[in-house]
Amino acid sequence: MRIYDIIERKKNGKNLTKKQIKYFIEGVTNETIPDYQISALLMAISLKGMDDDEVYYLTKYILESGEKIDLFGIDDKIVDKHSTGGIGDKTTIIVGPIVAACGLKFAKLSGRGLGLTGGTIDKLESIKGFRTDLSLDEFIESVKKYGLCISGQTGNIVPADKKLYAIRDVTATVDSIPLIAASIMSKKLALNSDSIFIDVKVGIGAFMKTIDDARKLANTLVKLGERFDREVVCYLTNMDEPLGLAIGNSVEIYEAIDVLKNKGHYSIVEFCIELSAELLLLGEIVNSIEEGRKIVKEKIENGEAYEKFVEMVENQNGSIDDIPRSDFVLELNSEEEGYIYKVNAKTVGEAAMILGSGRENKDDQIDHTVGIILNKKVGSRVKKGEKLAYIHTNSFEKGELAKNILMEAFSISVEHSDIADSIIEKIK
Amino acid sequence: MRIYDIIERKKNGKNLTKKQIKYFIEGVTNETIPDYQISALLMAISLKGMDDDEVYYLTKYILESGEKIDLFGIDDKIVDKHSTGGIGDKTTIIVGPIVAACGLKFAKLSGRGLGLTGGTIDKLESIKGFRTDLSLDEFIESVKKYGLCISGQTGNIVPADKKLYAIRDVTATVDSIPLIAASIMSKKLALNSDSIFIDVKVGIGAFMKTIDDARKLANTLVKLGERFDREVVCYLTNMDEPLGLAIGNSVEIYEAIDVLKNKGHYSIVEFCIELSAELLLLGEIVNSIEEGRKIVKEKIENGEAYEKFVEMVENQNGSIDDIPRSDFVLELNSEEEGYIYKVNAKTVGEAAMILGSGRENKDDQIDHTVGIILNKKVGSRVKKGEKLAYIHTNSFEKGELAKNILMEAFSISVEHSDIADSIIEKIK
Repeated sequence: MRIYDIIERKKNGKNLTKKQIKYFIEGVTNETIPDYQISALLMAISLKGMDDDEVYYLTKYILESGEKIDLFGIDDKIVDKHSTGGIGDKTTIIVGPIVAACGLKFAKLSGRGLGLTGGTIDKLESIKGFRTDLSLDEFIESVKKYGLCISGQTGNIVPADKKLYAIRDVTATVDSIPLIAASIMSKKLALNSDSIFIDVKVGIGAFMKTIDDARKLANTLVKLGERFDREVVCYLTNMDEPLGLAIGNSVEIYEAIDVLKNKGHYSIVEFCIELSAELLLLGEIVNSIEEGRKIVKEKIENGEAYEKFVEMVENQNGSIDDIPRSDFVLELNSEEEGYIYKVNAKTVGEAAMILGSGRENKDDQIDHTVGIILNKKVGSRVKKGEKLAYIHTNSFEKGELAKNILMEAFSISVEHSDIADSIIEKIK
Repeated sequence: MRIYDIIERKKNGKNLTKKQIKYFIEGVTNETIPDYQISALLMAISLKGMDDDEVYYLTKYILESGEKIDLFGIDDKIVDKHSTGGIGDKTTIIVGPIVAACGLKFAKLSGRGLGLTGGTIDKLESIKGFRTDLSLDEFIESVKKYGLCISGQTGNIVPADKKLYAIRDVTATVDSIPLIAASIMSKKLALNSDSIFIDVKVGIGAFMKTIDDARKLANTLVKLGERFDREVVCYLTNMDEPLGLAIGNSVEIYEAIDVLKNKGHYSIVEFCIELSAELLLLGEIVNSIEEGRKIVKEKIENGEAYEKFVEMVENQNGSIDDIPRSDFVLELNSEEEGYIYKVNAKTVGEAAMILGSGRENKDDQIDHTVGIILNKKVGSRVKKGEKLAYIHTNSFEKGELAKNILMEAFSISVEHSDIADSIIEKIK
């Protein structure tokens, strides 16, 4: 078998066989196929697509390229959660404690951020001392004891995915649906969860720009779940504007705490209640979404959800009272009067990047304290001179740069504008 | 400017700007763009195409990546000739002496072969002592004195093309029309010829498999010629079966000599007469193709064409009486009776490769003496046991292997079959 023939076949729009996909992924893992041939094939896949069988085998062999993680000794149902990535997405940090407070074991291995999309691990590390490098034993022990643990990816899972992602990231082949689906599912399947909830972000701040594409991705994920015998439920959720108010790292932890203390902005509160209720249903803690919503609201209102969060932070060595903030806060004021009809999530993400909240390259250092807090969301009324957002920065110069970019994110109209639904569609 | 954005733009099917193409080619030349990004962009170009402007700028910047060659002091019209590559294509070695005998200066810088396609330089080097490494001054002097010189590429012309070709060759992006057109034309434009004749091969043994694709390539080449102010004439010629009878290196020199001595097979004789007549017309030596044919036939019949060839060989240090042959000749006999309706050029090329006549990789050594000589062409009648071909080999084992492959190249039918035209179409 020759990689040349595999590239040529895909270039000509033909399906790859199981053996060809196996050969490709083994060559990626063993580093016997050079990067320039990998990237040529990734571009051909990106432009010519893959059918269900091809995506299945791609996922299977990426999964088999590394170790699997067995959450040995946890007998309860395990529900995993994944987000395809968006701006201001701190959902895991909120719904984890909520569902744990409701009695569902929440064992989550998260990643770091790259590009505009922040990572849950980076956000948690803005809490002084918080350990995200737990051993598998420590991770399992924590889940058994507290019903909740969020840590960094452990062990040598899906090495082929790491290699492929690194190449996709620099060759404009990140947004290919078969490649995204295989990457997500191989990682999720490496853990022995019973059900997988996937939040497929759609809009200007997400990989999937259109509902059509998001739907295609969700359907691919659900089908893959069936073939691997895992229940997969996808929500298509809006990422035209950022999720909630905060975009950054410690600022998002503060927002998560607000939500858990029942003081959050209604948009993210409602979003997290829905997601939590769905997770409880998947974990067979409740029998309906309605029942789920009810118990979730109770656990937020009676403080148990926040207590779970504190318990997790302390268990993982973090100081709940030491979550650093930036040195300065600049204000962005509106130059117009009217209704906000757009807060461009991508532009907000770019402004946060300028401040130093994210990494351009894998090895970049990030500043955990910087970020943006929106004061106005889509649909809000704003007067001239009123605050649109706060810019948390450690450099006056970067703050001013970010401010100029952030101004471009807001579109204001004289007409009243509708608020889009956060949750667009459920696919299972 | 970032190469990432250029890759993404082409992936999305958009046209690249002049500046983006310049940035790409400069990055290829300076080696500041890594191979995996070059190959991703080449695959995107291969699948999404390029419009006339893009191909023009691609050609322009590849051309400008290296030196140009000025045939200083040759005042006559210079006509260059190129073939897109086929099996058994020794045309240059035949038409060069013919047109030089007719008074047209023939100054040709040729390449080596790669893959199934042989190279003129390799073929000439099968003549003992023949020098193909002339300096530019020696080359110009030879053309001035004898009106004829065929030598290897000199100087640092089109380094970007060399780099791009090496990557295309291993990423299944060789057969892209814009990439082929830019590669051919940049090399041709590096020489200050007045007119360029291009033999676009079409069929199973060529890069262009269909007449439609060959026509597209020819049209692209002619348009590029217009924009660079050079007259370009293309012939679409048949490469379903090999050209002439011999496939290899010294065997092709012997066939070229036969044609020049007026003893060649009618198919290649007619082909070379037509091409020579066209070159004479382009070089303004004659006023019509008919007049060209007439003078060409005269120069073959009166021996002057062959004398020119001998003059060239001697001028370039070769021994016309020392053109080595292989140790053994095996015979391939027909197992059926009927009419030959196919001699698969690609399969014949593969059989010749097995014998050692070509190189898989750039640095492979070739055996100049081995090759195949067909005894039957498409349309021939054959009896059971009659010879289909001769296999010139230095290894009995390889000879037997080649024989088995070669048998597959021949298709025999009970029905009389038509002979395809060698020259399909002229495009200018």
